[in-house]
Amino acid sequence: MTAIVARPRENRRSEIRVTLESIHQQLQPLAAAIDYHIPSLPELFSMIIVMEQGATPEQIKHMIERVESFGLKAHPITGTERTVIAAIGEKRTEMKEALASGPGVESVMPILAPYKVASREVKKDSTQIRALNLKVGAGSIGIMAGPCSVESKEQILACAHAVKAAGATSLRGGAYKPRTSPYAFQGMKEEGLKLLALAREQTGLAIVTEIMSTEEVPLVASYADVLQIGARNMQNYRLLEAVGKANKPVLLKRGPSATMEEFLLAAEYILNEGNPNVMLCERGIRTFEAHTRFTLPLASVPYLHHKTHLPVVVDPSHGTGHTYLVPDMAVASIAAGADGLILEVHPDPERALSDGYQSLNFKQFDETMSRCRTVATALGKTL
Amino acid sequence: MTAIVARPRENRRSEIRVTLESIHQQLQPLAAAIDYHIPSLPELFSMIIVMEQGATPEQIKHMIERVESFGLKAHPITGTERTVIAAIGEKRTEMKEALASGPGVESVMPILAPYKVASREVKKDSTQIRALNLKVGAGSIGIMAGPCSVESKEQILACAHAVKAAGATSLRGGAYKPRTSPYAFQGMKEEGLKLLALAREQTGLAIVTEIMSTEEVPLVASYADVLQIGARNMQNYRLLEAVGKANKPVLLKRGPSATMEEFLLAAEYILNEGNPNVMLCERGIRTFEAHTRFTLPLASVPYLHHKTHLPVVVDPSHGTGHTYLVPDMAVASIAAGADGLILEVHPDPERALSDGYQSLNFKQFDETMSRCRTVATALGKTL
Amino acid sequence: MTAIVARPRENRRSEIRVTLESIHQQLQPLAAAIDYHIPSLPELFSMIIVMEQGATPEQIKHMIERVESFGLKAHPITGTERTVIAAIGEKRTEMKEALASGPGVESVMPILAPYKVASREVKKDSTQIRALNLKVGAGSIGIMAGPCSVESKEQILACAHAVKAAGATSLRGGAYKPRTSPYAFQGMKEEGLKLLALAREQTGLAIVTEIMSTEEVPLVASYADVLQIGARNMQNYRLLEAVGKANKPVLLKRGPSATMEEFLLAAEYILNEGNPNVMLCERGIRTFEAHTRFTLPLASVPYLHHKTHLPVVVDPSHGTGHTYLVPDMAVASIAAGADGLILEVHPDPERALSDGYQSLNFKQFDETMSRCRTVATALGKTL
Amino acid sequence: MTAIVARPRENRRSEIRVTLESIHQQLQPLAAAIDYHIPSLPELFSMIIVMEQGATPEQIKHMIERVESFGLKAHPITGTERTVIAAIGEKRTEMKEALASGPGVESVMPILAPYKVASREVKKDSTQIRALNLKVGAGSIGIMAGPCSVESKEQILACAHAVKAAGATSLRGGAYKPRTSPYAFQGMKEEGLKLLALAREQTGLAIVTEIMSTEEVPLVASYADVLQIGARNMQNYRLLEAVGKANKPVLLKRGPSATMEEFLLAAEYILNEGNPNVMLCERGIRTFEAHTRFTLPLASVPYLHHKTHLPVVVDPSHGTGHTYLVPDMAVASIAAGADGLILEVHPDPERALSDGYQSLNFKQFDETMSRCRTVATALGKTL
Repeated sequence: MTAIVARPRENRRSEIRVTLESIHQQLQPLAAAIDYHIPSLPELFSMIIVMEQGATPEQIKHMIERVESFGLKAHPITGTERTVIAAIGEKRTEMKEALASGPGVESVMPILAPYKVASREVKKDSTQIRALNLKVGAGSIGIMAGPCSVESKEQILACAHAVKAAGATSLRGGAYKPRTSPYAFQGMKEEGLKLLALAREQTGLAIVTEIMSTEEVPLVASYADVLQIGARNMQNYRLLEAVGKANKPVLLKRGPSATMEEFLLAAEYILNEGNPNVMLCERGIRTFEAHTRFTLPLASVPYLHHKTHLPVVVDPSHGTGHTYLVPDMAVASIAAGADGLILEVHPDPERALSDGYQSLNFKQFDETMSRCRTVATALGKTL
Repeated sequence: MTAIVARPRENRRSEIRVTLESIHQQLQPLAAAIDYHIPSLPELFSMIIVMEQGATPEQIKHMIERVESFGLKAHPITGTERTVIAAIGEKRTEMKEALASGPGVESVMPILAPYKVASREVKKDSTQIRALNLKVGAGSIGIMAGPCSVESKEQILACAHAVKAAGATSLRGGAYKPRTSPYAFQGMKEEGLKLLALAREQTGLAIVTEIMSTEEVPLVASYADVLQIGARNMQNYRLLEAVGKANKPVLLKRGPSATMEEFLLAAEYILNEGNPNVMLCERGIRTFEAHTRFTLPLASVPYLHHKTHLPVVVDPSHGTGHTYLVPDMAVASIAAGADGLILEVHPDPERALSDGYQSLNFKQFDETMSRCRTVATALGKTL
Repeated sequence: MTAIVARPRENRRSEIRVTLESIHQQLQPLAAAIDYHIPSLPELFSMIIVMEQGATPEQIKHMIERVESFGLKAHPITGTERTVIAAIGEKRTEMKEALASGPGVESVMPILAPYKVASREVKKDSTQIRALNLKVGAGSIGIMAGPCSVESKEQILACAHAVKAAGATSLRGGAYKPRTSPYAFQGMKEEGLKLLALAREQTGLAIVTEIMSTEEVPLVASYADVLQIGARNMQNYRLLEAVGKANKPVLLKRGPSATMEEFLLAAEYILNEGNPNVMLCERGIRTFEAHTRFTLPLASVPYLHHKTHLPVVVDPSHGTGHTYLVPDMAVASIAAGADGLILEVHPDPERALSDGYQSLNFKQFDETMSRCRTVATALGKTL
Repeated sequence: MTAIVARPRENRRSEIRVTLESIHQQLQPLAAAIDYHIPSLPELFSMIIVMEQGATPEQIKHMIERVESFGLKAHPITGTERTVIAAIGEKRTEMKEALASGPGVESVMPILAPYKVASREVKKDSTQIRALNLKVGAGSIGIMAGPCSVESKEQILACAHAVKAAGATSLRGGAYKPRTSPYAFQGMKEEGLKLLALAREQTGLAIVTEIMSTEEVPLVASYADVLQIGARNMQNYRLLEAVGKANKPVLLKRGPSATMEEFLLAAEYILNEGNPNVMLCERGIRTFEAHTRFTLPLASVPYLHHKTHLPVVVDPSHGTGHTYLVPDMAVASIAAGADGLILEVHPDPERALSDGYQSLNFKQFDETMSRCRTVATALGKTL
């Protein structure tokens, strides 16, 4: 319900800004009467400093220092055509005018989305995340595939070779497994990480693996190419901050009851620590539906593309929970505009230690890839 | 949670049947201890009489009479290769043997899905629904497009010509409008029906329009080619029975909190009255998500194709509630395997009397159709 | 999200009204930018004419005619201290001033809740519904109890005597049963109604029974004291209109995915036909929870008391779906402020034709009543 | 959907066990056919060793060692009448007989609930948690009240004195705040903990405060009397393990989309580390309802009492999100059987740094306590 001013024309924007400020004030007594909570403007408010196209690195550096001198946090975001600096903080009167007159500054605009660095407002062109041969976003579709858990050397190597042959550019596999029951298999831990590294050595696939606690960050980051934050930890803010400080791309899974705003604000926790490489992963929400493990709301894909420049990945395995539904939903995800897929693949799903009922075998994965490629090509994307 | 035995091998099936009956008995005390409600087998139980490939019409007629003589209801279902007769009712001991020895009978099998006539078990090949040039199912994708409400002669005729030009084969438009508020526009009623008929006269498009009460059935059925049951009336059983007796195809929308089983049983109410032409329409469910009007769970499409032979249509307009999300979700629906789309199109969405915020204008509809056609072609379907 | 100005002081209200009108205008461009649908003010807008305390019947009659002469609908609502007339319709400029100068008029105020006649704004004192000895609302708690379905003379008479002995003042029992499956028991129909009438004759209990279609209204209304609209039919608008024209109190059950606004607008359909005797019944919503049949959100009770003058009844039987949870939730409903309970009671729940797993036997009902009475008494209510 | 055998008679239990094992085997092919995932029995299975009433500490110690010698984990649980030892692990054939013949052993029974130590099966009498004067469970109702965040010395001391005067025995207050946005107030951290300790010094109230990461456990545990795990961290398993090792009672909040089984298994993570003092806190789930911040499903209270011996606390502040709904829901929680309440109270809610819209002021809290006490007394509880 927060006010996000999406892609307005320049003159329309200023008009809206004025309106927002005055309306906010008028809304307070009304909101009190109707039980509606309006976030305070300071909480929402920050600015974008749009640099001119030819702005020099010195000018940019200068403006970053100016922003920081006001006690604001500066996030420079380098686009293909120009740089913008997101300035985030609470104080704002008089600052806008002061900043607008800086060298190389084209304009200074307020933003109202509660997520700021993630917002499409501050960066119009889509972000592409890369890790080895994996490319996700901005026209490239990346496929991450592999078993739910690393179970053995044979299993993970077989998977790695099979998914690579079918066209995947990344290998997923859990070494630290979050399990609902304390009595269930908890993963091979560091031993699993070593096997993943071995698989990378043999295939060149980028490794995606989950990280469950701040303590594990250094170890996992030393093996993995992409750090996965699982759905259960989407609002584990200390963990988000820790991967925000790690120098690796992050795959952030949506919590099963997270709103889009909460999801983007979780990404913002990572971005706010200086890590710009965040992939958002839709993996299904919890609803009354019981014929699927979760409900997979594919409208998240175009919605997120509208609101953020970050790439959007879909997980049809968790999103449906049944092998026989995964291929059609993988294809539908591509058609909805997904920038990547993460899929559970196992040499022998019936014998998997976890999630076998939603894993594809090699043949099923190969066929799914082939259908996805057909649709991606028809829609002008690279897979 | 009901036991649906999907496409098993012949010998595996008999094994399962025996197990089910004995397990049901053993489960009762257990279920009582664990608060789990198990439907009684008589409530679930009925039979399919599978006729031989060369069975004659006389043999089929004879077996129907035999079934009815046991006090069961007989639903003959004619497939491309053979006929099966669904026999539905409560008594069953000794009947199975008696029926199995009938002329032209290949085998008699029990079924356990609570929905019976709708079940893929009783009819393996997909049903295609036709109305004028509209073909939905079995490889054909039908597009129903038009305004939420019929508002004027100019509006509906402009829509009809535009959607036809873009490739639709059916015109949707509401004459009787179910509105949340009694003070909102309730539709043009019979005047609207007459305008729809005029649009059909000029374009040849099949007319899809909603029916809200049993009293309206004769009048609406005299104008419409397809009778739509809205989401709010999915469990209005008297209305389902009434359209089950009408001689027109029915588009049944899923209620926003209906389970798949409730949805298929609502279809069963219609089928059970002798009307075999039912299209199931996924139009979104009510969840905690607020950034879309409803949550559109596209996994319904492959799920329903697995469970039923009836065609599955998707409504991305209500399913998202925002014009800018409709095109991507239309394309994703086709990729998920949808047999049809129903889309809100209006000459001037900003001035629509209802649902303007989720309607496409003519240009948007044309582009959407073009992308859908690309994907349908890539996947070997006809649109 | 509609603006409901709850119980403000007189001078504060006028301040708010002005703000609302001007804000509405300013919000339009903003709302367009942020994908937020704001209902048009005409759609929301109507007026309350507050008559003076000593206004005469002639003055009231005169003002009703004045309202109607403007093409508005007039709903006089007689409170204990004064009468107000709700004037509902689309046109409004200049009318306010014209009406404010009428004889016996104290003031004319705009209202903005989309539901109008149901709103606490138009009638501050709580409505009490009566049918024979049943009193629901305004300090009285009414208990409606009985079987899900009328099954036999013995069953319904045994129930009637037992629930009366335990303190119920109304007998519930279904004669026409909405069933998810067309193959399930559909009720005893008119035979069941006759048995209910017989039970009333013997016990004096008011009869509550469900009505499923417009055609059944005359027949069911000729037997029943309270007409129940089931959850599946909460938005069957023709049925709501039909019971709005019947001269009997209505128990309106909330649909399992209905918002509070939809629920109150469904009540508004009934009130708008001139039937002021509507009880709202919370019976649980559909959520991801599977350990209960539905999720029973008791905060509906104080919420509805805040928004409407209509009494609020709770159904802990459907709301939980398990006998062992019913008593605690019945007591909790009373503590939350419920004006009534509707409970499933059966002489032998294990042999009930429907809903046995959530029915209380006579002893359980008696104990539940006793605990409810203790809490009601402690909170100063009459049960 | 897991099989939980609740309070069966002794002879009935053995009957059920046999059935379960044989049924499990028979269900496998059926389950495969109907897309239903059945947990493996080893995953579910463990045993309870019920010691005789007069069993000596030596006998108990001996049996614990025997259990561990089989590679199982032993959890001795001391009840008022006898001790039982929960033995958890995967292997089980032959062990049962071996253990049954041990000294002081009355019987050995299998359990099937996936949560074991938390199960009412292994400990029939309700657990009471104590911290200073706070007593929660087994007939005592504990009230934890205070501000969302510690904001200043004046604020927290005023709160502490006010809630104590009204009858609370514990002070809640956040020093580390999980906030959806990285730009929102994150709490006073250790400074806040010191102020809480000061408030305890002055009032004797037990301190409840949230812990957000494993690193914070030693520090927070050195100040707090009860460690709170917030809803966002309910499945942060490393954190659950860490508080399981701390020597302080834990208040575990239900995640907004957690099933009851997930909730109890999260408790099991704590119990499994040897900390038996866990309070379960229902604080509302995420549903489609928007008129409340969350939906508060009070049926959780009797349900949890049925399944577990752990006490159940309700949070009506987060559960409703609106001050005006809190009092009625607090009273209803007591009536539903809650063992405690946690309530947000602030000296001046309009000026609170967080959650002001759902906080009670001192007068409202005092009135709420008074109504809760009336109902608790009427139902024979101590508050």
